[in-house]
Order: sequence, then C-alpha cells, then structure tokens
Amino acid sequence: MSTFAEQSRADIEQALARDTGEGYDRIFEAARYSLLAGGKRLRPMIVLAFCRLCGGQTAQALSFACALEMIHTYSLIHDDLPCMDDDDLRRGRPSCHRAFDEVTAVLAGDGLLTAAFETAAEAPLPAETVLAGIRCLGRAAGMNGMIAGQVLDLGAEHRQIELDALRLLQDLKTGCLLRAACELGCIAAGRQDADTLAAARRYGEKLGLAFQIQDDILDIEGDAAALGKTVGKDARDEKSTFPALLGLEDCRALVRELTDEAVAALPGAPADRAFLTELAYSLVGRTN
Amino acid sequence: MSTFAEQSRADIEQALARDTGEGYDRIFEAARYSLLAGGKRLRPMIVLAFCRLCGGQTAQALSFACALEMIHTYSLIHDDLPCMDDDDLRRGRPSCHRAFDEVTAVLAGDGLLTAAFETAAEAPLPAETVLAGIRCLGRAAGMNGMIAGQVLDLGAEHRQIELDALRLLQDLKTGCLLRAACELGCIAAGRQDADTLAAARRYGEKLGLAFQIQDDILDIEGDAAALGKTVGKDARDEKSTFPALLGLEDCRALVRELTDEAVAALPGAPADRAFLTELAYSLVGRTN
Repeated sequence: MSTFAEQSRADIEQALARDTGEGYDRIFEAARYSLLAGGKRLRPMIVLAFCRLCGGQTAQALSFACALEMIHTYSLIHDDLPCMDDDDLRRGRPSCHRAFDEVTAVLAGDGLLTAAFETAAEAPLPAETVLAGIRCLGRAAGMNGMIAGQVLDLGAEHRQIELDALRLLQDLKTGCLLRAACELGCIAAGRQDADTLAAARRYGEKLGLAFQIQDDILDIEGDAAALGKTVGKDARDEKSTFPALLGLEDCRALVRELTDEAVAALPGAPADRAFLTELAYSLVGRTN
Repeated sequence: MSTFAEQSRADIEQALARDTGEGYDRIFEAARYSLLAGGKRLRPMIVLAFCRLCGGQTAQALSFACALEMIHTYSLIHDDLPCMDDDDLRRGRPSCHRAFDEVTAVLAGDGLLTAAFETAAEAPLPAETVLAGIRCLGRAAGMNGMIAGQVLDLGAEHRQIELDALRLLQDLKTGCLLRAACELGCIAAGRQDADTLAAARRYGEKLGLAFQIQDDILDIEGDAAALGKTVGKDARDEKSTFPALLGLEDCRALVRELTDEAVAALPGAPADRAFLTELAYSLVGRTN
C-alpha cells in the first residue's frame, strides 16, 4: 500500500475511534464493534484522496470521511438484520445482531447514522462548506439514494431482473455512497465548481459499479476466510447478479473497462491522480 | 385550541407532507404513513412557539420543527418493531411494520432519520444557525440522548428500577427531544444566549417529565380509542412506571407541580408566554 494509503488509514482509524466517544455502554460497544472492525475503509480513503487531489489537507476532510464510514457501517448493521439479509458474518466476525442482539443492532445502527451527521457538523470548515457536506451525505444516504437501493435490492430477491434494473439498483445501493465520497473530498477542499464535482461523481459511479460487479464475482469465486463474509449467498437468496446476467468472463472485462473509465474521469495533474488510479486498479485484482 | 396552535398545526402538516417528497414508492409510502398519521405534533408546535417567543417567525423555524417530528416518528417506528416493544397499534392505526412489513419499517425509520437532517440543512437561516440546529438535533437524538433512553428502557423491562433511574431513563427517552424542541425554537429565532437556552431547556425538561408521568397514568386509566394506542402495556411488559413507584395520587400531584415549574421557567413577557403556558396546562388535563 502507498504511504498515502497507510497514513490515511491510520488517520481514519484514529478519528473513528475518537468520534464514537463514550456513553451508554452497550450501544457504544456495539457501534464500535462494527465501526472499528477493520474493513477496507474504501469510502473514507476516497474522501481524503479527493480532498488532496483538489489541493486540500487530510484534517479538512477527516470529519466527512468518518461520517461517511459511519453511514456505511450503519447500513451494513441494518442490512445484516434477520428481517433483511439475515447474515451471520461480517468483516470476518459475527455480525452485530449475532455478537449482541437484534435490538442492540437496530439501535447501534440508528446511533451511527445520527453520529454521522453530528460528526460531519463538527468539520473544521466554513459553515457553508459544512452544510454542503451534510446535504451531500443526506442525499446519498437517503430515501432517493442508498435506502432506495436497499428497497430495490430486497424487491429483487427470488426473481430475475433485467440488466438495466440491476445497474440502477447497484448504482443506488453502492454507487451513491461512493459518489458522495468523491464529492465530499472536493467539497472539503473548497472545490465546489460543477466540472470538478461532475468528474468526481463520474469516477465514483464507474468505480462503484466495477466494485459491485467484482463483489458479485467474489461471491461466486471468493474465499470466505479472505472475504470475511459469507460466500455463495447471492445464489442462496436467488439474487440477480451481473455474472448471472452476463457470464463471468464478460463481467471480468466489464470490471476492467469501468475501471479504465473511472481513471480517465479523474481531474487534476497525473502525479496527483496516482493514488486514486492505483486504488481503482487494485480493486480489479482484489480478493476481498 | 388557540389560533396560534391551529395555524401552527396547519403549517406543520403542510411542510411535513412536502418535505418527505416522492421517490421509491414503498418506502416513501411507509414513511408518510407514519409521519402524516396525525399525532399531537407537540414537538414541532413547541419549536414554533419558542421561535415566536424569541421574536421569530414560523417560516424561520419550520424546517427544524419538521426535522424534529421526523426524528420523533422514526423513533416510534423503530420502537414498535417486533424486536423492540412489539406494538401493533400507533396513533389509532396499525403500526408501520404491521401496515407494511418489518423490513419496510426499518428502512422507513432509517429514511426519516436521514430526511430529518436533510430537512434541517435546508432551513432558510444563516449557515452558522443551521449548523447549531443540526448539532442540537444530533445531540438530542443520538447515543447520549434519545437512543440512550431506549437502551435504558429496554434494560428496565421485567424488573423494578429506582425512582432516580426511572427519571434518568425518561429524561433521556422523552426529555431530550422536548428540550431540543425548546432550544431549536430559540436557535431558529437567532437567540442563542446561554440564559435563554437554559430557560428553554428547563421548560422542556419539566414538561417532558410531566408528560411522561401523565403518559404512565393514561396507560393505566386511559381509553385505547382516545389514546390511539395499546393500553396496559406497561403492566404487560412489567415496566417500571411512576405510578408503580409513587402511586397514582402522588403522580397526579407531581404532574401539576412539574407543569407549574415548566411555566415558571418560561422567559419573555407574560403575553408572549400565553401559548406555551396553555400548552403545558393542557397536558395535565389531556386524555391522549
């Protein structure tokens, strides 16, 4: 991993551990159990990388980065609930409701979603910029964003959907937060011009789709130990997947193509784009 | 009801119907089902009343008022879930997970919590003021506020707790949002001085406790039809209540005493305090 990635990860882990704070023990324990369980930290890393690409510093973007990771984590906790995907394993450990109980998992998710907005609201930036970040977070996580993706996803179980419907579903479920990660980095750096934000969104959109297709491939070919989660669950849940619709070979080609498009969309000088380029390509070869 | 209450209620209902917007149908339908189910609108009404008390206009405070009601509604939806209080009836109709299903109820709650912060972020106020409102909302709803109250509440089932523990529990579970309602009205009006906010919090704290004790009394004496929710459920769940600890007569006296204290805490000129005074006393005589 590059120095930027190493340093960013350390900054993110430290800030996440600090921002969840302390209080009524069981809920904080459950929230921290899920939030501090490792994970790739892909979204907060992208926030920091886009901030740097736009000339900003890590300290400017860290609150937004943590807020986004909290939203991502809350969505995983609720997604794993018995009434949702009913998943026992997450990031290599029992999922939150298995490690604690269902009530605690619901409340820990609610708590992390709330903490995300509290954390974003404390960003050391001009008030207008903080508000722009909060609006971006809300749009991405809300009922026309990630939650809409969850709804479509649950509606698509036990039946086959068309490729366009699957792309929309994944664009909402996974793409929204990845696009927000790119945008939040720009916003934190004080770059809110339409061109920069559009380029950032394009990178996030292409990368998000590539990431999701790769996820589907890994669910078929991957190793549960390396992935840290249940494999073969798409087939078990009779979910529509890209490999089911396009075949594994075409999926691999599409991941490469989307990754190229993501990289081509990056703004800025080549040297500054190095980390986000490397990150995109590393996803193609990833095993987790 | 006073003209202010009537007008405020109309403003609140209209804004809530607008702010939830449209989108992926089932989730919006579920969110609107719960949000627009009537209810006393006590919290948003208090936001508007404190804004007026501090010299502001309804339009300044409406976004915060709606945001707070969305948070209250999301908490009711999640609170009614099978893994939480498992309640079938809310505001005179089937609770959200009964009218829809459990998954939809979880996501509608998540969606409303997110929408609350989006709505607050659109308040037509200076950015610093909007941020102060968002911070107030997050603090009240978060893991050291309302969610902590939920945790204590669930931990207090099937066992008797002491009066102090019950007061803390209720202060967190109900008091936090009521205090936030008072504070948000002041903030929206541009009054953020420590004295005004402390007085507002004191009103909210006393009123919140009076309201909760009255709620416990109604759970014993009330009529399910008038209340629009299940009665006798505290006894069924073996919950610690104020009447169980203090007896009904002492509870009635305490409600009156707390209401007097709430009214005495109100800042401003007597004429301006009329609505909030009336509101406090109307809670003592309420049947729902």
